[in-house]
Amino acid sequence: MADEGKATDEAEIRRLIDEWVRAFRAKDIKGVMSVFATDVVSYDIVPPLRYVGAAAYRKPWEEAFASYQTPVGYEVRDPSITIGEDVAFSHSLNRVSGTLTDGVRTELWLRWTIGLRKIDGEWLVTHEHASVPVDLMTGRAALDLEP
Amino acid sequence: MADEGKATDEAEIRRLIDEWVRAFRAKDIKGVMSVFATDVVSYDIVPPLRYVGAAAYRKPWEEAFASYQTPVGYEVRDPSITIGEDVAFSHSLNRVSGTLTDGVRTELWLRWTIGLRKIDGEWLVTHEHASVPVDLMTGRAALDLEP
Repeated sequence: MADEGKATDEAEIRRLIDEWVRAFRAKDIKGVMSVFATDVVSYDIVPPLRYVGAAAYRKPWEEAFASYQTPVGYEVRDPSITIGEDVAFSHSLNRVSGTLTDGVRTELWLRWTIGLRKIDGEWLVTHEHASVPVDLMTGRAALDLEP
Repeated sequence: MADEGKATDEAEIRRLIDEWVRAFRAKDIKGVMSVFATDVVSYDIVPPLRYVGAAAYRKPWEEAFASYQTPVGYEVRDPSITIGEDVAFSHSLNRVSGTLTDGVRTELWLRWTIGLRKIDGEWLVTHEHASVPVDLMTGRAALDLEP
């Protein structure tokens, strides 16, 4: 019974991630935001240090999507998901690729961690952390790494 | 009863973080590594994209500690801890400061996420993600941000 519940939870979290990827590729801002709890705390790949609350976190998504042609390429590679009764987290290396509105092609691998809570029977992302590594001596971001 | 268990779990995780901070400040590599599960997957602030396993993750710690004079300043600011029965995660903005062996003073705020599992009654960190934001247009890391 417990194992069945866990299998269902894993299927639900994988579906949440799949739906989020679909929304990202389509630049569907409503779909992207739908997985986040209203009080999500996000450490995004770009400044500032953090966004507190889904309302504040919407703006950088609008800006990012505005700079890309549609569709955007997005892949969540082999997410490792750790699931408890009502708390879970997932980490993966994600690949984002696409063409900017000025025609420049971009491709990037980033590290992606999400923390989730099951709230009223529904899994939601309450914490997100996306980043690339940096060279602390030169101050350069490592934007060309591959898994 | 469940609430009591949760309070105990929170106290244990806070103690784990406190002990880790103490070890970091003292450059106590054994103490730092003691909180990580053997199969920890770490997304460190510096390249590569990830470290898989505590054995591989020890080396960058040795290198980082070798570049700092003792003690190092380290603060975990107001960790937000989400705790389930045997799965938990925590996120916080951490401040690392110190003097490099060449005499240069450094100070940096980073974003820190840890995922934990309760294994045989003991909480261990199975996933860690540390980063600073980057400017994707210039490729520069944002090393001077403050909360």
